[in-house]
Amino acid sequence: MREFELIRHFASLAAAEGLNLLDDAAVFTPPLGRELVISSDAIVQGVHFLPDDPPDLVARKLLRVNLSDLAAMGATPLHYLLTISVPPATHDDWFAAFAAGLAVDQAAFGISLLGGDTTSTPGPISLSATVIGHVAPSCALRRAGARDGDGLWVTGTIGDGALGLRALRGDLPDPGGYLADRYRLPRPRLGLSLHGIASAAMDVSDGLLQDAGHLARASGLSLRIDAALVPLSPDARRCARLDLCLTGGDDYELLLAAPQSHEIALSRECDRAGLAITKIGYFRGGSEGVETVNAPEAIGTAAGWSHF
Amino acid sequence: MREFELIRHFASLAAAEGLNLLDDAAVFTPPLGRELVISSDAIVQGVHFLPDDPPDLVARKLLRVNLSDLAAMGATPLHYLLTISVPPATHDDWFAAFAAGLAVDQAAFGISLLGGDTTSTPGPISLSATVIGHVAPSCALRRAGARDGDGLWVTGTIGDGALGLRALRGDLPDPGGYLADRYRLPRPRLGLSLHGIASAAMDVSDGLLQDAGHLARASGLSLRIDAALVPLSPDARRCARLDLCLTGGDDYELLLAAPQSHEIALSRECDRAGLAITKIGYFRGGSEGVETVNAPEAIGTAAGWSHF
Repeated sequence: MREFELIRHFASLAAAEGLNLLDDAAVFTPPLGRELVISSDAIVQGVHFLPDDPPDLVARKLLRVNLSDLAAMGATPLHYLLTISVPPATHDDWFAAFAAGLAVDQAAFGISLLGGDTTSTPGPISLSATVIGHVAPSCALRRAGARDGDGLWVTGTIGDGALGLRALRGDLPDPGGYLADRYRLPRPRLGLSLHGIASAAMDVSDGLLQDAGHLARASGLSLRIDAALVPLSPDARRCARLDLCLTGGDDYELLLAAPQSHEIALSRECDRAGLAITKIGYFRGGSEGVETVNAPEAIGTAAGWSHF
Repeated sequence: MREFELIRHFASLAAAEGLNLLDDAAVFTPPLGRELVISSDAIVQGVHFLPDDPPDLVARKLLRVNLSDLAAMGATPLHYLLTISVPPATHDDWFAAFAAGLAVDQAAFGISLLGGDTTSTPGPISLSATVIGHVAPSCALRRAGARDGDGLWVTGTIGDGALGLRALRGDLPDPGGYLADRYRLPRPRLGLSLHGIASAAMDVSDGLLQDAGHLARASGLSLRIDAALVPLSPDARRCARLDLCLTGGDDYELLLAAPQSHEIALSRECDRAGLAITKIGYFRGGSEGVETVNAPEAIGTAAGWSHF
């Protein structure tokens, strides 16, 4: 299967540097005077997406969870590679729909395919992507860099993806389908120019409290989060499951640290990009971890202070 | 599981550019004045390796099948990224052995880890790697480029991997374990300087005859292969399964096209690298495909002329 499938379905997606997917590898001239930013993420059927999720949305989710890592570094995306492991009986229609999803997001994010691999698997569909972007030298955003007193900010709304997964499983109501859509189609927060404004950044993929803990630890600090300030969509608010919103994951929003002196610049830059941003806490000295106030009982102290 | 596993087991393998695997992506300054060569390949338990293959050898096979793609392009390897999807109950020992295998081949091939992802899967172990290498501008070897009259050459010996798989399944004798070892541990043919000598190149992963067909087609030519000239190891010869050797795959040798005027240079360069190389046929005009003479009956005309 290997290269036949890939070439037949995906050749039209290839960058010139992908050599029409006809060679053993892509050859690629890096943009002059820029650093490259590169990340790989895998998604597995039944773990990161549902067996009946439409293939075009699965393809777009694969790209978007990867692009979210570039967004966290402040990078501009350029290219990607794919590996696709599917059951031998996978129908041509699946590949066609998957490729159509890739085409939509290639256009949306200005990226093109460099290469990859298609194999069979006796198990569930397993996908990986590697995304390549670029930044000006020494301008990548990092997790380490927050300072004592910096505010903790988060883009967009939190919890929609985690609630959407429960909705798709029939465990929560989702009358308009908004939450399910947020689960299936993350919004990588690309396009912000935050070098010199944010002191640290990461994307929220494993749950807000857990990832905030990572950000604090990477900076050698502790963190106080006010759960009452965490931005929720109207649909999420209606579910009344703040516990899931704070810990559920699948957000693909950005967590940012910024000193008070840069708060206006941060708000302006997010405004320019049409992106809401909310201050939900602040960094402080010490190694106690993440203290969460106004959290629901279900979170408890354990999660509030975990991961240190 | 995601990043905890990766960081705990793999941080010591990370390049400086991998930021200790603690950020969302790696930041990497491409070597000045070089083109980057990049490729992704996936391997799946039960398809590309056996459930009881030792984890350190699985890790090395993953790297080596990817490095073989760089070898085919004439590139020097630099870095890699990994995605690892394993059952939730996978023991720490598995990760430790897997990481130990990576460490051995990082040293052997002069590469280091940039990043990646660890996820759980309800299915078999699914692995992918992306390898990054570099070449001088416009010096990458390509599949298209062979000319009418060029010789077809192959490095090393053919069929050991395919026979080794049968041996590990108990279908063929392999008293010294040589064939099994060749299946488990490909030898990517890196380190040759073939720009200006070879007119086309690719690696043999899907079977000699099939891949030779790809090389001919990419160059707009046909090919005549003398099966009697295909180099076999003593262990492969003992199996007397030339049909499997010609079509079995898992060779990870290089297929090269070279004009007669460069045959001495080609032999010298392979000699310098301590690598055997054998002429097994020649390219010719037309679009008839691959004609194989002296092939065993089991191959038949079908395979001899397939894939065009």
